[in-house]
Amino acid sequence: MRTVEWHEGKVRMIDQRRIPWELVHVDLPDYQSVAAAITDMTVRGAPAIGASAAFGMALAAHQSRAITVETLLIDLTAAAAMLKASRPTAVNLAWAVDLLMDMARSNEFSSADDLREALLREAQRIADDDVAINQRMGSNGQVLIQNGDTVLHHCNTGALATVDYGTALGVIRAAFESGKQFHVLLDETRPRLQGARLSAWEMEQLGASYDIIPDTAAGFYMQSGEIKLVLVGADRIAANGDFANKIGTYQIAVLAKENGIPFYTVAPTSTVDLSLKSGAEIPIEERDKAEVLTPFGNAIVPPHFKARNPAFDVTPNRYLSGIVTENGIARPPFEDSLRRVVAGEQI
Amino acid sequence: MRTVEWHEGKVRMIDQRRIPWELVHVDLPDYQSVAAAITDMTVRGAPAIGASAAFGMALAAHQSRAITVETLLIDLTAAAAMLKASRPTAVNLAWAVDLLMDMARSNEFSSADDLREALLREAQRIADDDVAINQRMGSNGQVLIQNGDTVLHHCNTGALATVDYGTALGVIRAAFESGKQFHVLLDETRPRLQGARLSAWEMEQLGASYDIIPDTAAGFYMQSGEIKLVLVGADRIAANGDFANKIGTYQIAVLAKENGIPFYTVAPTSTVDLSLKSGAEIPIEERDKAEVLTPFGNAIVPPHFKARNPAFDVTPNRYLSGIVTENGIARPPFEDSLRRVVAGEQI
Repeated sequence: MRTVEWHEGKVRMIDQRRIPWELVHVDLPDYQSVAAAITDMTVRGAPAIGASAAFGMALAAHQSRAITVETLLIDLTAAAAMLKASRPTAVNLAWAVDLLMDMARSNEFSSADDLREALLREAQRIADDDVAINQRMGSNGQVLIQNGDTVLHHCNTGALATVDYGTALGVIRAAFESGKQFHVLLDETRPRLQGARLSAWEMEQLGASYDIIPDTAAGFYMQSGEIKLVLVGADRIAANGDFANKIGTYQIAVLAKENGIPFYTVAPTSTVDLSLKSGAEIPIEERDKAEVLTPFGNAIVPPHFKARNPAFDVTPNRYLSGIVTENGIARPPFEDSLRRVVAGEQI
Repeated sequence: MRTVEWHEGKVRMIDQRRIPWELVHVDLPDYQSVAAAITDMTVRGAPAIGASAAFGMALAAHQSRAITVETLLIDLTAAAAMLKASRPTAVNLAWAVDLLMDMARSNEFSSADDLREALLREAQRIADDDVAINQRMGSNGQVLIQNGDTVLHHCNTGALATVDYGTALGVIRAAFESGKQFHVLLDETRPRLQGARLSAWEMEQLGASYDIIPDTAAGFYMQSGEIKLVLVGADRIAANGDFANKIGTYQIAVLAKENGIPFYTVAPTSTVDLSLKSGAEIPIEERDKAEVLTPFGNAIVPPHFKARNPAFDVTPNRYLSGIVTENGIARPPFEDSLRRVVAGEQI
């Protein structure tokens, strides 16, 4: 079962807003619906929205009635702009769209149909690669987990955040599948509760040992000495190792450092944006205050109450023990190690 | 309007579980109901549960059919045990009960009715003193807030957490009433959302400038430089200044220190427990996981999902800039300054 896939000329996704209550799919007939599904978080997770955008581009090509490559390019350019604007922070989305646009502009295709087919094949490849890359990250990262450990995890970085398998939760999955005995504390991750709703659902499916904790309790379990390792995902990593991730990541990183606990992010090299020198350049999405005040339709306060809702924060590289990638674990100084793993070097 | 008061032979409380939706009172006819209301958080906040327990003792005296002081003492001893067991962490509760039991055992009363009347008068005095003490803390603490500041606040420490006026939110109230222009960020404070439900409601009543933020965003607004001051309450303060407060306080304290932001707790001297050398001796209440999984009846995940729910944490004194009391602001070294304010010295 994949989070997102091509299905009979449409983009099929798990509707993550219905997890953990039911596992339902939506079939999206056009790229506009794919962009809307990314914005409204029917699909979320940096690698999953990257693959979704790639399929969205393939869908745009199939929607278009263009007969020539040139006119198809015009339609693809419009689709690319809409898909890239659907969420601002994760770089995987822009990375996938740019990859397909570069292919479309390469002059390698003699007909619009050839280009349509090539774009779909490339989207499929991105999706398949994501699963393979996640398994390699799992294998590279699971050495960090020891028998008897308690691992803290933030947000959802599992199969649902990717095409399948997961990034940080993929490392946990790999350690579990290798037979290690350990416990996972899942930050519930307000406001959208991806830890409680999605990661706990995945841990239930896996049969692994976990507890959901309020975000307010992460420091408590670090201070008590129970947490031995922190694993999170990433939405964009700058060349110096500063990285954007779900709101709340920065504070966990500070607490981990204060308590001497190793803190790793797990992300494919497609999440690294070498064009950014530091995290200060990463755009941070601010979302609707209704996500805070009325989570999933259940009002906690009247709708006129005031609230703010930043969706991501940036963790400076000094809090980071390492970055688990498909090409090995990048360690400080990250300027050097990230450049090497992005170039494909195994470290 | 008081959070808790004596009303026609019963203990009348605001039902805080219904705020912000409606302002309703409950009239409790016996001390057992008072203990239950403390446990189920109909009333909460360290000073408010202290006053509630005092009225609960007065109610126990009035319930008792004892004719002699000696037999009344037996009934009071049972009530004291039940009230003190209703919540473990805040010391104000035990402080108030012990104060009334000491009075009952003082041999000063010639009849059971004399003792009954004295206990009610003493409970009234504790409640009245709480309001006066809060106003003095507000006056002492409001100098910390400057025009243009953004202040971070955790949980609820307002009129609802006390008999009236508030501790940390009382300082904010005093600064607002003195005409200062500033903004308050309210941690929503999962799992029970006292920041979103109770503190935001109080800020709405006051007409002050505020935003609710998810607990995950506190670090983000410290890192951005927006937050200039952090104010929290306390449920128990050890002789060395370590203090227990609502879960999530410790991590805010660490983040404040990391970002060079002054961090103060605001608490009456009745919250100081000089019998404890350090915070390691403070008992931490663990509450039902349903508070995490099904907040106020709205399930966020299925009830069989696993969760943990520590209600408090302990912040070591090294993160603390000062303790605002009714006798002035205690500063490090706290062993000395706390001993002085508890003795009644103005500092």
